[in-house]
Amino acid sequence: MVHKQPGDGSKAPWWNGFEQALAAVTEPDQSAKKAAMDRQASLTKPPGALGKLEDIAIWLAGWQSRERPSLDKARMVVFAGNHGVTAKGVSPYPSSVTAQMVANFRSGGAAICQLCQTYGATLEVVDLDLDRPTADFTEQPAMDIEECQHALARGAEAVDKDPDFLLLGEMGIGNTSAAAALALALLGGEPEVWAGPGTGLDKQGVARKAGVIADALALHQRHCDHPFEALRRLGGRELAAIAGAVLEARTRRIPVLLDGYVCCAAALVLERARPGALDHCLVGHVSSEPGHAKLLAGLGKAPLLDLGMRLGEGTGAAVALGVVRGAVATHNGMATFAEAGVDNRG
Amino acid sequence: MVHKQPGDGSKAPWWNGFEQALAAVTEPDQSAKKAAMDRQASLTKPPGALGKLEDIAIWLAGWQSRERPSLDKARMVVFAGNHGVTAKGVSPYPSSVTAQMVANFRSGGAAICQLCQTYGATLEVVDLDLDRPTADFTEQPAMDIEECQHALARGAEAVDKDPDFLLLGEMGIGNTSAAAALALALLGGEPEVWAGPGTGLDKQGVARKAGVIADALALHQRHCDHPFEALRRLGGRELAAIAGAVLEARTRRIPVLLDGYVCCAAALVLERARPGALDHCLVGHVSSEPGHAKLLAGLGKAPLLDLGMRLGEGTGAAVALGVVRGAVATHNGMATFAEAGVDNRG
Repeated sequence: MVHKQPGDGSKAPWWNGFEQALAAVTEPDQSAKKAAMDRQASLTKPPGALGKLEDIAIWLAGWQSRERPSLDKARMVVFAGNHGVTAKGVSPYPSSVTAQMVANFRSGGAAICQLCQTYGATLEVVDLDLDRPTADFTEQPAMDIEECQHALARGAEAVDKDPDFLLLGEMGIGNTSAAAALALALLGGEPEVWAGPGTGLDKQGVARKAGVIADALALHQRHCDHPFEALRRLGGRELAAIAGAVLEARTRRIPVLLDGYVCCAAALVLERARPGALDHCLVGHVSSEPGHAKLLAGLGKAPLLDLGMRLGEGTGAAVALGVVRGAVATHNGMATFAEAGVDNRG
Repeated sequence: MVHKQPGDGSKAPWWNGFEQALAAVTEPDQSAKKAAMDRQASLTKPPGALGKLEDIAIWLAGWQSRERPSLDKARMVVFAGNHGVTAKGVSPYPSSVTAQMVANFRSGGAAICQLCQTYGATLEVVDLDLDRPTADFTEQPAMDIEECQHALARGAEAVDKDPDFLLLGEMGIGNTSAAAALALALLGGEPEVWAGPGTGLDKQGVARKAGVIADALALHQRHCDHPFEALRRLGGRELAAIAGAVLEARTRRIPVLLDGYVCCAAALVLERARPGALDHCLVGHVSSEPGHAKLLAGLGKAPLLDLGMRLGEGTGAAVALGVVRGAVATHNGMATFAEAGVDNRG
């Protein structure tokens, strides 16, 4: 656990501990990576013919420090939070749906349950004070310092059980508004670029949402010089938890698979605080939420999948785990040219 | 088995039986499709939020005639053939590799073996007279009528065991040249558009390959008014077998997942012979072989994946089966709003 607030009464900003953790992160294991590259070159296929599957296997090898990576303990953590900004009519669904969907996650009825079962990930759901929504960020910061730190710490804790691959998702009625506000604060542009239909707003609804986000930025932008402060003011508990989990995973060199718009907006906080902070992260998919592709450009990340999904819950990351399984299976299980007695190119 | 040559001594062209089979194909079950659409609308997610996963489930429901489709008998068939045109230096690998890779498929060492295991498909390998390569199509037709009909029939036979989902792949040193020649004959353009690196030709090699394809077209184009005749003259046994399998699957209303450049070039024969012939087919991926994206445009098909793969063997289709499994799992297993007690949108 690295996420302690300085308790010495100093004037250090509240995010100091997180910055220190980011400054201390290490790089992937180059010798495991090299061994994985050599193995790829020996397998019975033309060099490079498995495309991104090869890249994924080599990347995992580096972060897991083993020539042949494992996916025995793939773990999906879905963080759920509620948002005061829903009072402004930014979602077609009522806030009650967040807790109801958390119950649906726990009883196995949600999309993410089916997908985790299909692709072999355990599913943990972390609900973050659902009965206490964040403040409406058009009126005040979404979280006070303690709330934000607590949510970051809850995210870090969720990494505790030493997964070999960590997948992250979220649930929270209103949270594409938080993601849009955060993206706007950290990447700039116009509110209209970042506000999308979310769970299904119509055109008027999207315009209203863009206005709400503009209001939030008018209030907070001048206090958002630091990405962690932007997270506190404009994010939400599940976004802070995702940032906390991604940072803790980097500290432990656990590779991470990110999901959609909200998940990537949360991770963006770390990338803006320290470029390269997300080198241990792949992005599972690009969603049909219009801002996501632009957000990925801001992160410098290419998604594995583009399936027109926009559900959240970690569902895009879960489907992408299917691709990652293929990468690991071919890397670990294929025969070499020598083993199979196949002639290599002349 | 629909692929009988007219045996009555008439002057009907040799592909007459195949044309008749194409004329007799039926459409998917609209009532099962409607039931699947209604089910999708009831599941605990915003309408459309699972994107292509929803489309895939509904499409499968139609072809399988059941509201909840099954993937209990997904079956990958890989057809292998050898090509006389390899004498012209169109591949960096020797023809001996085709039979060696077939042995590798059978002993479990190839990429496709690992992927079929990962995504839950049985794997059948059909080697087509590997010791008797097709003729060099720059000098004469690749196959005589009997050879081509036999290969088409071998493809149809491979559908015999009633899979609920059929995946098709191929192996054959030199077969991207056959695919390129066939695409050129059926879709036009310049040889350079369709000739790519295949297993890894350098720039000079690709130019040589384009020249070989131009030579082939100069010899055969005027005889290629009918797509089946183009297949016979420019294709190869594994391409003919794929066309035969796709047609037989359509006759039996078995949904099909196509793989890369060679597989799609073979399927193109049917689409050109009868537009709509491939309505029961999805394309698993777009490969990095440059002509594939253009071929997909010609087919009017969008690929599920774009992972920079270019191995053939059915590997792109196999990885896409992973996505299809997610589509079926969510469609069949999710709770409805009513079942889960989740509030629907207001």
